[in-house]
Amino acid sequence: MAGLPHGAEKINDNRPDNKHRYCVVMCGGIGTRFWPYSRTDMPKQFIDILGTGRTLLQMTVDRLLPLIPMENMLVVTNARYADLVKEQLPELDPSQILLEPDRRNTAPCIAWAAYHLAAKDPEATMIVTPSDHFITRERLFEAEVLRGFEFIEEHDALLTLGVNPTRPDTGYGYIQVGSPVTSDVSRVKTFTEKPDLELARVFVDSGEFLWNAGIFLWKASVIKEAIARWLPDLAAELDLGADCFGTPRENDFINAHFGLCPRISIDYGVMQKADNVCVERVEFGWSDLGTWGSVYDNSPKNRDSNVTQNCNVLTYDSTGNIFAVRDRKLVVASGLHGYIVADTGDVLMICPITAEQSIRQIVSDVESRFNGKFV
Amino acid sequence: MAGLPHGAEKINDNRPDNKHRYCVVMCGGIGTRFWPYSRTDMPKQFIDILGTGRTLLQMTVDRLLPLIPMENMLVVTNARYADLVKEQLPELDPSQILLEPDRRNTAPCIAWAAYHLAAKDPEATMIVTPSDHFITRERLFEAEVLRGFEFIEEHDALLTLGVNPTRPDTGYGYIQVGSPVTSDVSRVKTFTEKPDLELARVFVDSGEFLWNAGIFLWKASVIKEAIARWLPDLAAELDLGADCFGTPRENDFINAHFGLCPRISIDYGVMQKADNVCVERVEFGWSDLGTWGSVYDNSPKNRDSNVTQNCNVLTYDSTGNIFAVRDRKLVVASGLHGYIVADTGDVLMICPITAEQSIRQIVSDVESRFNGKFV
Repeated sequence: MAGLPHGAEKINDNRPDNKHRYCVVMCGGIGTRFWPYSRTDMPKQFIDILGTGRTLLQMTVDRLLPLIPMENMLVVTNARYADLVKEQLPELDPSQILLEPDRRNTAPCIAWAAYHLAAKDPEATMIVTPSDHFITRERLFEAEVLRGFEFIEEHDALLTLGVNPTRPDTGYGYIQVGSPVTSDVSRVKTFTEKPDLELARVFVDSGEFLWNAGIFLWKASVIKEAIARWLPDLAAELDLGADCFGTPRENDFINAHFGLCPRISIDYGVMQKADNVCVERVEFGWSDLGTWGSVYDNSPKNRDSNVTQNCNVLTYDSTGNIFAVRDRKLVVASGLHGYIVADTGDVLMICPITAEQSIRQIVSDVESRFNGKFV
Repeated sequence: MAGLPHGAEKINDNRPDNKHRYCVVMCGGIGTRFWPYSRTDMPKQFIDILGTGRTLLQMTVDRLLPLIPMENMLVVTNARYADLVKEQLPELDPSQILLEPDRRNTAPCIAWAAYHLAAKDPEATMIVTPSDHFITRERLFEAEVLRGFEFIEEHDALLTLGVNPTRPDTGYGYIQVGSPVTSDVSRVKTFTEKPDLELARVFVDSGEFLWNAGIFLWKASVIKEAIARWLPDLAAELDLGADCFGTPRENDFINAHFGLCPRISIDYGVMQKADNVCVERVEFGWSDLGTWGSVYDNSPKNRDSNVTQNCNVLTYDSTGNIFAVRDRKLVVASGLHGYIVADTGDVLMICPITAEQSIRQIVSDVESRFNGKFV
């Protein structure tokens, strides 16, 4: 350690600003794309989908712990997942888990967290992050998030992280970069929806577009102001409980009022409208793990290019498969190329990786055919 | 019932000869071809491989019960399978289960059964049948087996059943028919090994060749004489216990001497040598269920030509598969054609039906790689 700058190995202890920095982990999603591995009662963020030994939620908290004290972590999830969060993050105090009584998209989720934090700490700054994405180059992530905190501590801006695109991915939204504010941060010119391949190529080649990672940084007070301006109905609903946030009455208030908040995303409701939106260009590796294909891409492969998770696999003339099978089961495959083999004990799915877009239809068919069983 | 001939519905009660007729079910095999569905501790004959609700052993006994009283059934199996036999055939008295201490091929198995029955009933006649084959047209089977009993009751012959071939199968042995003895029974000219396809076609087209079903009928005394003549070492070993058979000392004698009997098949040791061998041409449907392909052929199929056993199956663009999966598991398959999908809880195997000959190699690989686990 002698060669490191003083305190570099214990970044928390040496940063006086650290105590006002909070992390809000959005953990209420119920994706179907990883069925049967993910289920309504066990969504993707609670699963060790990459076979690392840690779930995506745990990895999300792990990677922010060098920057944010554990007591400043906040997990917002659906009430039905309370036990899963407690089980996977036993270090959290129950007061650090905000339980949504209802699914209302990201704006009400983030608004509640902002009201909660602002009541608790008027100087609160926050990073808002999905709980089910995958990030590589974590040291770079730390440095870039730190830079983001420093930026929003100095500017009353809504900062989003824009990932330098490495390929013309048609599964992501893009952010067009505008005029620079600092060397790393610029104004946002436009947010775009998922482009077709031709447009995605134009985006990437232009150098002006970044992937929208859905990770935000801002002061709690600044996002509250933005919500008051751009989503006045939402602000009005939460303002009714102004004296409840940070008190024992907060949960009762939320249970009574959250269902009355408008269903809207923070992107559509605030980011695409506000005039103080900035983007920090980041270089860390990022995937939203939105598809089995991205899980395949982000997982270690054996010499036959198969991904094998939590199972013993013996393959003959079989390449490019994902074997996601629980409980150290033995899987023997012969003559199988490019398939997802997902086995969860009660369900076995065998599906070409290239046909994974049909999983939504499969889940719908299973749901209607078996009266909700297996879903 | 009024229109039926008197007693036709209760054939047992009306056949005085019936009480000397015995059935010997050979039940000691340990095939690997249905791995992972069959295991060393659960061979094919103990499995409901066709998904009918009855195991192959149970079906074997079921189809002979119209001809043979239950108390005249004898099951010869390996000592390790004693509990499985008792569980699947609870109607048997323990004295009806002969437990081989060792695997010695079919000649010692049949010889023991013949010594056992001859000691018990000097007039005993017997049908010897594998426990893991599949037979259709069971009324025809009954009539043809009855005819076989009548033949060997009148002739001191070794009678084998020859199935009229419906295709040039290269997986079966063939019997060449010689001069006729009765309208249904002929002398055997030759037994042949499994032919290549060209030769199999010649066999079938000639009309002179029948499939060797491995089902035999004879008097116990006649097969004893044949063994004494053609397998004198085997006869000599068993003759040492001449006064033990049919007594409480029989099992001790067998445990001491069975392992000293030569390992040889009844076909090679007796049938291919003896001069009193006859064949009855039979027309019932027969398969040795020697391959997953034959299980596929003999199983009911859904409208996508998939065979689904003991499982819920939802398929998309998937045809010609066998899904042999336990415990009503849900299987979803997409873009899968002509595969065996066998799931036994601890093992999942996905293998093209056309590659099933490699299962022996797979089992060998699994055995060496996992120290005997999973086999």
